[in-house]
Amino acid sequence: MKKIMQYEVGEQVEVYLLIKSASRGTASNGKPFLTLMLQDQSGEIEAKLWDVSKEDEGNYIAEKIVRVVGDILNYKGRIQLRIKQIRLAQAHEVPDIAEFVEKAPVPKEAMMEKVTQYIFEMRNPNIQRITRHLLKKHQTAFYEYPAATKNHHEFASGLAYHVVSMLDLAKAIAGLYPSLDQDLLYAGVILHDLGKVIELSGPISTSYTVEGNLLGHISIMVSEISKAAEELDIHGEEVVVLQHIVLSHHGKLEWGSPKPPMIREAEVLHHIDNLDAKMNMLDRVLSRTKPGEYTDRVFALDNRMFYKPTFHQ
Amino acid sequence: MKKIMQYEVGEQVEVYLLIKSASRGTASNGKPFLTLMLQDQSGEIEAKLWDVSKEDEGNYIAEKIVRVVGDILNYKGRIQLRIKQIRLAQAHEVPDIAEFVEKAPVPKEAMMEKVTQYIFEMRNPNIQRITRHLLKKHQTAFYEYPAATKNHHEFASGLAYHVVSMLDLAKAIAGLYPSLDQDLLYAGVILHDLGKVIELSGPISTSYTVEGNLLGHISIMVSEISKAAEELDIHGEEVVVLQHIVLSHHGKLEWGSPKPPMIREAEVLHHIDNLDAKMNMLDRVLSRTKPGEYTDRVFALDNRMFYKPTFHQ
Amino acid sequence: MKKIMQYEVGEQVEVYLLIKSASRGTASNGKPFLTLMLQDQSGEIEAKLWDVSKEDEGNYIAEKIVRVVGDILNYKGRIQLRIKQIRLAQAHEVPDIAEFVEKAPVPKEAMMEKVTQYIFEMRNPNIQRITRHLLKKHQTAFYEYPAATKNHHEFASGLAYHVVSMLDLAKAIAGLYPSLDQDLLYAGVILHDLGKVIELSGPISTSYTVEGNLLGHISIMVSEISKAAEELDIHGEEVVVLQHIVLSHHGKLEWGSPKPPMIREAEVLHHIDNLDAKMNMLDRVLSRTKPGEYTDRVFALDNRMFYKPTFHQ
Amino acid sequence: MKKIMQYEVGEQVEVYLLIKSASRGTASNGKPFLTLMLQDQSGEIEAKLWDVSKEDEGNYIAEKIVRVVGDILNYKGRIQLRIKQIRLAQAHEVPDIAEFVEKAPVPKEAMMEKVTQYIFEMRNPNIQRITRHLLKKHQTAFYEYPAATKNHHEFASGLAYHVVSMLDLAKAIAGLYPSLDQDLLYAGVILHDLGKVIELSGPISTSYTVEGNLLGHISIMVSEISKAAEELDIHGEEVVVLQHIVLSHHGKLEWGSPKPPMIREAEVLHHIDNLDAKMNMLDRVLSRTKPGEYTDRVFALDNRMFYKPTFHQ
Amino acid sequence: MKKIMQYEVGEQVEVYLLIKSASRGTASNGKPFLTLMLQDQSGEIEAKLWDVSKEDEGNYIAEKIVRVVGDILNYKGRIQLRIKQIRLAQAHEVPDIAEFVEKAPVPKEAMMEKVTQYIFEMRNPNIQRITRHLLKKHQTAFYEYPAATKNHHEFASGLAYHVVSMLDLAKAIAGLYPSLDQDLLYAGVILHDLGKVIELSGPISTSYTVEGNLLGHISIMVSEISKAAEELDIHGEEVVVLQHIVLSHHGKLEWGSPKPPMIREAEVLHHIDNLDAKMNMLDRVLSRTKPGEYTDRVFALDNRMFYKPTFHQ
Amino acid sequence: MKKIMQYEVGEQVEVYLLIKSASRGTASNGKPFLTLMLQDQSGEIEAKLWDVSKEDEGNYIAEKIVRVVGDILNYKGRIQLRIKQIRLAQAHEVPDIAEFVEKAPVPKEAMMEKVTQYIFEMRNPNIQRITRHLLKKHQTAFYEYPAATKNHHEFASGLAYHVVSMLDLAKAIAGLYPSLDQDLLYAGVILHDLGKVIELSGPISTSYTVEGNLLGHISIMVSEISKAAEELDIHGEEVVVLQHIVLSHHGKLEWGSPKPPMIREAEVLHHIDNLDAKMNMLDRVLSRTKPGEYTDRVFALDNRMFYKPTFHQ
Repeated sequence: MKKIMQYEVGEQVEVYLLIKSASRGTASNGKPFLTLMLQDQSGEIEAKLWDVSKEDEGNYIAEKIVRVVGDILNYKGRIQLRIKQIRLAQAHEVPDIAEFVEKAPVPKEAMMEKVTQYIFEMRNPNIQRITRHLLKKHQTAFYEYPAATKNHHEFASGLAYHVVSMLDLAKAIAGLYPSLDQDLLYAGVILHDLGKVIELSGPISTSYTVEGNLLGHISIMVSEISKAAEELDIHGEEVVVLQHIVLSHHGKLEWGSPKPPMIREAEVLHHIDNLDAKMNMLDRVLSRTKPGEYTDRVFALDNRMFYKPTFHQ
Repeated sequence: MKKIMQYEVGEQVEVYLLIKSASRGTASNGKPFLTLMLQDQSGEIEAKLWDVSKEDEGNYIAEKIVRVVGDILNYKGRIQLRIKQIRLAQAHEVPDIAEFVEKAPVPKEAMMEKVTQYIFEMRNPNIQRITRHLLKKHQTAFYEYPAATKNHHEFASGLAYHVVSMLDLAKAIAGLYPSLDQDLLYAGVILHDLGKVIELSGPISTSYTVEGNLLGHISIMVSEISKAAEELDIHGEEVVVLQHIVLSHHGKLEWGSPKPPMIREAEVLHHIDNLDAKMNMLDRVLSRTKPGEYTDRVFALDNRMFYKPTFHQ
Repeated sequence: MKKIMQYEVGEQVEVYLLIKSASRGTASNGKPFLTLMLQDQSGEIEAKLWDVSKEDEGNYIAEKIVRVVGDILNYKGRIQLRIKQIRLAQAHEVPDIAEFVEKAPVPKEAMMEKVTQYIFEMRNPNIQRITRHLLKKHQTAFYEYPAATKNHHEFASGLAYHVVSMLDLAKAIAGLYPSLDQDLLYAGVILHDLGKVIELSGPISTSYTVEGNLLGHISIMVSEISKAAEELDIHGEEVVVLQHIVLSHHGKLEWGSPKPPMIREAEVLHHIDNLDAKMNMLDRVLSRTKPGEYTDRVFALDNRMFYKPTFHQ
Repeated sequence: MKKIMQYEVGEQVEVYLLIKSASRGTASNGKPFLTLMLQDQSGEIEAKLWDVSKEDEGNYIAEKIVRVVGDILNYKGRIQLRIKQIRLAQAHEVPDIAEFVEKAPVPKEAMMEKVTQYIFEMRNPNIQRITRHLLKKHQTAFYEYPAATKNHHEFASGLAYHVVSMLDLAKAIAGLYPSLDQDLLYAGVILHDLGKVIELSGPISTSYTVEGNLLGHISIMVSEISKAAEELDIHGEEVVVLQHIVLSHHGKLEWGSPKPPMIREAEVLHHIDNLDAKMNMLDRVLSRTKPGEYTDRVFALDNRMFYKPTFHQ
Repeated sequence: MKKIMQYEVGEQVEVYLLIKSASRGTASNGKPFLTLMLQDQSGEIEAKLWDVSKEDEGNYIAEKIVRVVGDILNYKGRIQLRIKQIRLAQAHEVPDIAEFVEKAPVPKEAMMEKVTQYIFEMRNPNIQRITRHLLKKHQTAFYEYPAATKNHHEFASGLAYHVVSMLDLAKAIAGLYPSLDQDLLYAGVILHDLGKVIELSGPISTSYTVEGNLLGHISIMVSEISKAAEELDIHGEEVVVLQHIVLSHHGKLEWGSPKPPMIREAEVLHHIDNLDAKMNMLDRVLSRTKPGEYTDRVFALDNRMFYKPTFHQ
Repeated sequence: MKKIMQYEVGEQVEVYLLIKSASRGTASNGKPFLTLMLQDQSGEIEAKLWDVSKEDEGNYIAEKIVRVVGDILNYKGRIQLRIKQIRLAQAHEVPDIAEFVEKAPVPKEAMMEKVTQYIFEMRNPNIQRITRHLLKKHQTAFYEYPAATKNHHEFASGLAYHVVSMLDLAKAIAGLYPSLDQDLLYAGVILHDLGKVIELSGPISTSYTVEGNLLGHISIMVSEISKAAEELDIHGEEVVVLQHIVLSHHGKLEWGSPKPPMIREAEVLHHIDNLDAKMNMLDRVLSRTKPGEYTDRVFALDNRMFYKPTFHQ
């Protein structure tokens, strides 16, 4: 079925969409209207619903699915959907809210198997036990949450997808630089962003929690490792080193790590994280760009635009 | 009794001193010698001990007290002690190593009483219980450790002294701005640097521990609060807010706080900490400066030098 | 009486308001209209006046008080006032323009008394005479001007209110750090922003004067001290030190002080100024925020948002 | 045979060493002396030669090999060699100056084979021809030069060794992110630092040439690609893209790239370069560090020190 | 004839204008409209053309000249042209597209003569030959291109005009500091921005080429000098020095020069370039400003606004 | 007569020198010695005087002229003078202390004439009267002081020499950009650094005064202009504009100007000042450098080194 982002300006649409957010305004004629952000897996589009009743305001709210008939138009250079008809979708019509949110290109089960295998390969029991304990504690959220609210891996299961890509990178790099401690590196990859399951509100309409805003996923996870070690009665230096690897993975104080990497594997983790995030962002913007053209400026990549060479098909 | 820093160049000394550090070199005649840093409460002085035997090297090591006879001389613009005679002090000769280290100008007991009183005044039971629990857990070290290895309050009991001064400042400020939550502010003051009892090695010859270097006192304390809340079974928002206040007290990411202050009292705590540290540094450098003259450049104060006006006696 | 900011969207209003600014536009039908910024003590609101005559344009100008009947509506997410009727208020209708501008929460007389008392307490005659001379020279403006056009203390008598708060803070701090020279500190507090009476245009519709833009209040005041000393025939080092304290009170070159603080009291003045300005900004934004919510981002506080804990009533 | 860096303080040595540099001074007795930096593959050591004749000054110059008898001593905390006897090595005594300089751990032939294979795998003929042409033009130097005068890969054949490691990294990464253009990436790796064969003076006593100082290896190589394309009569967009990849490989303007990466492969090249350089630096400093200890501060790694965990053997 | 920028709001116009850009939108009534940027030598103005046909969309495109009848109106504080009638100008009606673009205030021939004279005065044959060769190669474009797409000298022949002004400045400065090498300085001035003829698309609707975006005019010119020297068989140090002077003329790495000036004349060139660009920007903004008023903020001058003193007529 | 900087290592000297500074130390044999900095117009050299008596310490002090016999030697890479004989010069022996300090290459009288002529040419009476008044007030010092203690024009009459060079530059530039107000520019040049006569201690052994350290020459001069205008009863906008031009001449807040240039002539003054200072520094370091070699790194020029091309004789 054709997705909302695949329609051109001028085409008529008749689709199911998820309401991402709804906000009320008053038109110049004094009547209330709603500005709706509507989405499916292909992306999101703005729509105005004019002359709304109190009942409309109560119906059309975030996380509801609607059936919409309308036109795609260009309003001040941005695509917009003019609604002609709208109604709430009935329970039997649409299978699952998950069909309307973007998600990782790999199924959860495949990711779980891969992560389990990497943990299984660890030889240092302290590192292995702490990693397994924390992953188990937050398992459901880990495989559902995005890795961020925007910038990179901002889709359902994005967190696990990011971790799995990084584990493969870590393995390749550890193969080329044999001085690296694979256990530490794998544990670092698995734990580095796990605090996001507390920092963020969930996989849909993702926002920051109070803990997320006031402490951040790095500090949250450092405390979690501390508590895990206490529960498992582990006292080796591995505990502090694992905390440090998570703590320092943003690489610099001004990027939110209160200590810079001071362990070889911490330095490598920072680079792997960086590289995978950037590849994800670049692949997304370049997939929307034709050869011989430039992407939009990407804020998270120093506001650069990127060129797709004409000899790249 | 005259302290080592009170002697002038050219004078002869005969004193007990604590060895702060000792390092071995080889003289141009091929014989080994020791470079000793010797100190009492007034400060420290470098001394060379020439032609040392293996036995000397074993005797004259850090944290030993020695009896020294020698002259004060000026070597390349710096004061130095030329040793004529040296021997280890005997157990009965000197009362206590504490006599040789600089310490806070207020006795421990007075500080303890004051801190206890401030905790007693708290009305929010969650804040009060966490603060009391953590202070009790680290009580001995809290009243003995310095607040830093250098820059400010770098003397025995400096940590508690810094906290007590800040509590008084906090009280005065809370009096002038009644919107402030005194409980939070007092708890923030008491806990903000408490992680230093794990970050630093102890009150004498203070250095950084592995945990101190890899995690830092801020992250250490954030984990400690988390564990305290778990032990005390406290779940209110006070836990996250206390963690945030400790987390953010350096004020900016590039100064080591992974989040900037986002709570009114966190902002105030940062200012109080800053002001008390600066007053301590300024009082120390200006006490060594005559009216109409400049202090040396102070690295921790943006490398500024300060002027003492001639009308200041 | 209900103030303009206390009305909700949809309500009808019938009030006196002060015109803060008025600008002319041409509507899509080719007819001129006015965009009016209207205010009372509670804040300001935008209004459009359509199809205006030449006479209207002459009447409805900045600093006039008008009687308005209209509706509150939400235009693109911002509150707006739709004017149904408007006329100039007659002289007998409204007591005083001062009723329409926000002002300090303490009466002028109380502030004057306090400042006078602080000057009276000074013991250094040079410092006292210069301070008294300059305050007297600019007395009327000092008690009427705001402390800034925006960010903090941006209301009538804001300058004096800021100074009085800082004097109380200075007294509290000087009590805790007895090495401080109270006279210098009080004089610094009183004079530090006095140049704003030349930098700014006045208490209503405040803007920058040419002198304000080209020289700034710091340099203006440094010259004023120089001239005062000449008039009073004072030659002691107090003159240069007072100039320095004013000169350096922004703390860093990049914040507009051509020299950083190089006197103990100059350093303290910078901190007191900073703290009082921040407390004022925080109190204002937090008074508009409910427990469990965040303030808007505050540009002058590094664009941070602040959280109001749920346990703060 | 025992290398110079393997001797302890106090030991006597009798070895061949290469003079890296020699500078003349006058002793306090008015007689001239030489300060020699002497080296073998293990590192370098300072030595003083006292009371030198005119003949000595002429003999003991950079790039000569000498036979030295002497003692290792500790002078102001640094290792020094006291010379007892010295003479120029005779031609038949020492096989090759290359024995005295540090070099890559992989033989040249193996590296040449690998690079040739990567070029062979390229499918874009424009990219392949330019790469092959430039490598052939600078082939001898490419396999002999260091990658830098200090910081990383600062040894003979360091440039080729760095390139070969990066090619393997590039292959592993391209395997994980199939959107990458392998030809561009391999060509970028091979050419990115090739300008160093013009920027630097050679493999021994390496310094910067005038072209190196005034233009830098990046600009030199951009011109070389331009000239190569002209000679080979290649006009496709590949020319500009290859120039860009070399131009931007330092990643930021302030790091010497006049444009930041604006092509996906340019971004990846920058990361691979960075990662390999850092791994090389870390391996070197950590190989000199015992478990449970810290390395010295590494200037090129933001002046950080690194910790070697105790559980790393 | 009256130019478009000389009309006031409310006046009716009947003029020929050049379409600078045209973009299509859909009005709230669902019909397409065009937003046209129209210009003549005095500047540019936005206009809306409502209810356009497919034919209109094909006719009214960039670089076409149109005859327009309409009104000047004020739309949200910006001047706008409401079109009443529009048609394409016929070939015989308007002499030349050049009449509609802003251009340098000096005729091309006068500039050519001046540049030729400066080259003639050079005494170093290597410098003279390279300069003459490159100027000849790019001669037509050099006298037609602007110096930039915005900020300074952004008009037809702006590049040559900028160079001629700088040559005169260079001559005056070389007269005052006789240590300067005039040949180098003149060559540096002539070549420094010559790469813009490849970096930019042309004198009308100027944008960046792919080479411009990926390499920049500095690197382009450094390669050009390299190739010129090869063609002319010149091998002296002048080649590297000329490349360096061009390379470093932005003054700092973060401003796009991969090396800072390391030759006296390179330093001077940077200052002359800077000064002439700033004088051009200042003259333009101040010519639109009345005495006693401020210019708008100028982004390229650190976002400053400038004051025109009242005593400047 | 041969100057001290013209001697080579190994040569014997017998010369008059000025003592720039003298400091006392204690040798390893316990006897006091003096470290003397001795200078003539060619530069300065360090010398040690061993085994000094109390009388020697009283005789050999700053600003005395001595007759010295000794040898030039190389001590740790720096030139040093070993004193064999020393005595105070007698009054009749040496003409004038001025013979021993470096000074401007143009006689005072010529500079005075030039400055007078520039003031004479001013047409705005307010600008002319203030400039003349202030120059007259500080005339003697203006023609004797250096422009700085180091970096540029750090020699007797350096201030006037710098001003005269800048006046000539200003005239040349004003000739090329006729929109410039010559009067303002000349007045700005003459007054911009005049505050240095209060900031610095004098032409010999120059150091900073208390006013210099606490206020700086910029703020000092802004006050001076203010007082001059009051004395001359001048009230036009020229006063504020002149103050602004002086205030802003360092160009940026972080370089010590509390406001950036906001007047066209202020911007130009900043550039002229910068250019003349840099030319002076470059001429000095390049005069000591041979073609084909590099200067030392110049701290005030961003720590760059400069290359002297081989084709520069």
